[in-house]
Amino acid sequence: MTTERQYVEAHRDLLHADLDGWLRIPSISADPAHAADVRASAEWLAAAFRRDGFPTVEVWETPGAPAVFAEWPAAEPGAPVVVVYGHHDVQPVDPIEKWTTPPFEPTVRGEELFARGAADDKGQLLFHLHGLRAHLAATGRDTPAVTLRFLIEGEEESGSPHFADLLRARRDRLAPDIVVVTDTGVFARDFPTTTVGMRGLTGCQIDFHGPDVDLHSGSFGGAVPNPLTALARLLAALHDEDGRVAIPGFYDRVAPLADSERTAYGNLPFDEAAWLAGPAHSRAATGEAGYTTLERIWARPTAEVNGMWGGYTGPGHKTIVPADASAKLSFRLVSGQRGGDLRPLVERWLAEHTPAGITATLHWGGDGVAPVTTPIDSPALAALVRSMERSFGQPVGYSREGGSGPEADLAEVLDAPVIFLGVGLPDDAIHSPNERVVLPMLERGAEAAAYLWSELASPGANPSAS
Amino acid sequence: MTTERQYVEAHRDLLHADLDGWLRIPSISADPAHAADVRASAEWLAAAFRRDGFPTVEVWETPGAPAVFAEWPAAEPGAPVVVVYGHHDVQPVDPIEKWTTPPFEPTVRGEELFARGAADDKGQLLFHLHGLRAHLAATGRDTPAVTLRFLIEGEEESGSPHFADLLRARRDRLAPDIVVVTDTGVFARDFPTTTVGMRGLTGCQIDFHGPDVDLHSGSFGGAVPNPLTALARLLAALHDEDGRVAIPGFYDRVAPLADSERTAYGNLPFDEAAWLAGPAHSRAATGEAGYTTLERIWARPTAEVNGMWGGYTGPGHKTIVPADASAKLSFRLVSGQRGGDLRPLVERWLAEHTPAGITATLHWGGDGVAPVTTPIDSPALAALVRSMERSFGQPVGYSREGGSGPEADLAEVLDAPVIFLGVGLPDDAIHSPNERVVLPMLERGAEAAAYLWSELASPGANPSAS
Repeated sequence: MTTERQYVEAHRDLLHADLDGWLRIPSISADPAHAADVRASAEWLAAAFRRDGFPTVEVWETPGAPAVFAEWPAAEPGAPVVVVYGHHDVQPVDPIEKWTTPPFEPTVRGEELFARGAADDKGQLLFHLHGLRAHLAATGRDTPAVTLRFLIEGEEESGSPHFADLLRARRDRLAPDIVVVTDTGVFARDFPTTTVGMRGLTGCQIDFHGPDVDLHSGSFGGAVPNPLTALARLLAALHDEDGRVAIPGFYDRVAPLADSERTAYGNLPFDEAAWLAGPAHSRAATGEAGYTTLERIWARPTAEVNGMWGGYTGPGHKTIVPADASAKLSFRLVSGQRGGDLRPLVERWLAEHTPAGITATLHWGGDGVAPVTTPIDSPALAALVRSMERSFGQPVGYSREGGSGPEADLAEVLDAPVIFLGVGLPDDAIHSPNERVVLPMLERGAEAAAYLWSELASPGANPSAS
Repeated sequence: MTTERQYVEAHRDLLHADLDGWLRIPSISADPAHAADVRASAEWLAAAFRRDGFPTVEVWETPGAPAVFAEWPAAEPGAPVVVVYGHHDVQPVDPIEKWTTPPFEPTVRGEELFARGAADDKGQLLFHLHGLRAHLAATGRDTPAVTLRFLIEGEEESGSPHFADLLRARRDRLAPDIVVVTDTGVFARDFPTTTVGMRGLTGCQIDFHGPDVDLHSGSFGGAVPNPLTALARLLAALHDEDGRVAIPGFYDRVAPLADSERTAYGNLPFDEAAWLAGPAHSRAATGEAGYTTLERIWARPTAEVNGMWGGYTGPGHKTIVPADASAKLSFRLVSGQRGGDLRPLVERWLAEHTPAGITATLHWGGDGVAPVTTPIDSPALAALVRSMERSFGQPVGYSREGGSGPEADLAEVLDAPVIFLGVGLPDDAIHSPNERVVLPMLERGAEAAAYLWSELASPGANPSAS
């Protein structure tokens, strides 16, 4: 009998052959010229599911690009149902001239494979296929230990415009006990982690109207309300001196961060100076007092001014009291918060900070995206961590992501806990030229996936058996 | 012997004929296509000065449009020298379709004469010619009682770009004891006033730089300084809760308003509700606590945000922490303040309000325009008020203007007190379609000018005799 690891390593040629085949299809969903390629990508994946033994494989149409659904029931009637989420479309490739080798000619250099989609997300989906083969070979089973339902969308890189509708329409076919999202990464190659949360998002635009026309500041300046000054005062009142969002009630529904999670983040080898000089391109860390940088970007809600404008903005000077001023704000939400709940709080705060003579208009951006959080004490998370620790051979920590996409729809529409099995690395360049995946990371993912189905089916981790 | 008033009324046809002639010349200085018309306007005026007896009349060239200089010395060697300032160019006429009669076909309807330039400034200069004829006729003199030097520029409506240089180059030819500016108006037809001050102006642009690139607010929001938030906090700190400019030292050199002036403004029939609904197009009066609206726009210094921009300002939302944010500020200055003195105060204030991680750049707009103030106790002002009171037959009050143009250059370069003899009305529509002048107001101006040369030459008012 072979072990999961032995299978993964002995048959890595299968994984490499799949990578080389699928990554040659330029499934760029944002470019209408590639619509046929996105469809070819879906067909390629559907064929791979069929080849590997999935009894049900369907291409699900949407008003945009097609998704792929593949189901393989466990033999045991009480086995948990797991939906695995990923996407088969890829980012555009511009600037093409910065690629060392063509983005759709997969090229191995050392232990790295370079191609658009290598890490985001085709490579990670292929570790699932490889891992399932290892799972079946190592356990001697004819079916997975859990009922597997893969849902692989084709518009993630275009903002998943039809995904929530698709989930609602297909809810009965999906009906999971657990959702496994495979579109994330680990904190560092030598520090494996699983994502346990993503922040939600909502936003608004605020328009302040003062005089009905731009006024000459010589004739009127100093005697009528200036909407730019009023808006500056409003935005200055968005945070208090401790960097906390000062909208009354903003934190009322925020679930406090668990001590275990804070400890886990504190244990991560985070180099703030390198982060500032590198990805943050900034000269200082700042934010809500009492929290670390990782907590601020992963696990705390924020209010951010994304844009502001008003008055004369051209060269030279035009001495006016402008008629109008506007700002765009966005709010990152965490567990317990919903965009819709925030709206009345913002309305009240805005009314309290609108001075006499200024007319305020709030354009609310909708309910937005809900936050996603994996409960730290969830048996499914424990099963995932055990699987990853067996594969990586070292402790697995927690991380989060500051923004979220379709993951929130999965949690909301399917009403199931979401766990994250992903092996991307921060320097995989997933939306940039020279995207790559580290091949040994895909093997760690395959092995972890192979264990995961067994772990989730074990009595202590099976949510449908509790 | 005729009186000044009798002469003005008996010979009003002369005034009307001059109006009809000069107002037909479309001397729009802002439009290069009218350059020849601006020159024709200068030549028309020079010919009128010669016709009326000025022994010296010259057209003074500038790199732009020509000015007209005309001198008529008093017979008495010790007579004061008066420079009269005005301009012979006019505003553009767009939107032309809103004119009831063509802008360069002067049309009398009732006691009003409609034409571009009727009030601003050709009509007012023609009352001077008519007034000087009345002065000579009524006093029986062969020369004016003061040495008159008219300087009539041709680029006032284009921002007087060459005027200060012209004054510096011709300072010895001008060398006045008193400057009479004739390019302003009275508070109301039934409430004649003279302007006793104009605010100065300086400005700057402030750029705040945060991250070196626009950052994704999901991945970085809440942990790095946002330059828009920082700029909003800076601008919110521009005024205190009492509407006072909160830049330390801003008021240090501001001369307090004289009680007599505040009383004079308080006596003006100012209808704030009508002002708000009318020219101010605003729904509330606001500003520095402890001052009335008229004091705020005429006689108190201000800081105004003229424009601000940064981040994403297009349709929809882009959730970024922007790299840059900018604002344009202007400051209205009053007696005692100079733009150059303000710069170090703004630099210090800016440095104190620049948070860690933000790089601030101040683009100072130069020394700007100095404020102009007529000393309330000046003998020349008393002579002007006596002249106007004799002409209008009622008390004459004080007013100010919130902005200034070449008047500041006159005061600074020529180093002489500036008084304002103007009879424009607030609803003369001087920069709008259907500009008009009220003909009886021009007669009041002519009569006041006729008295003014005698009043200024009287022992008590002659500054050169003191």
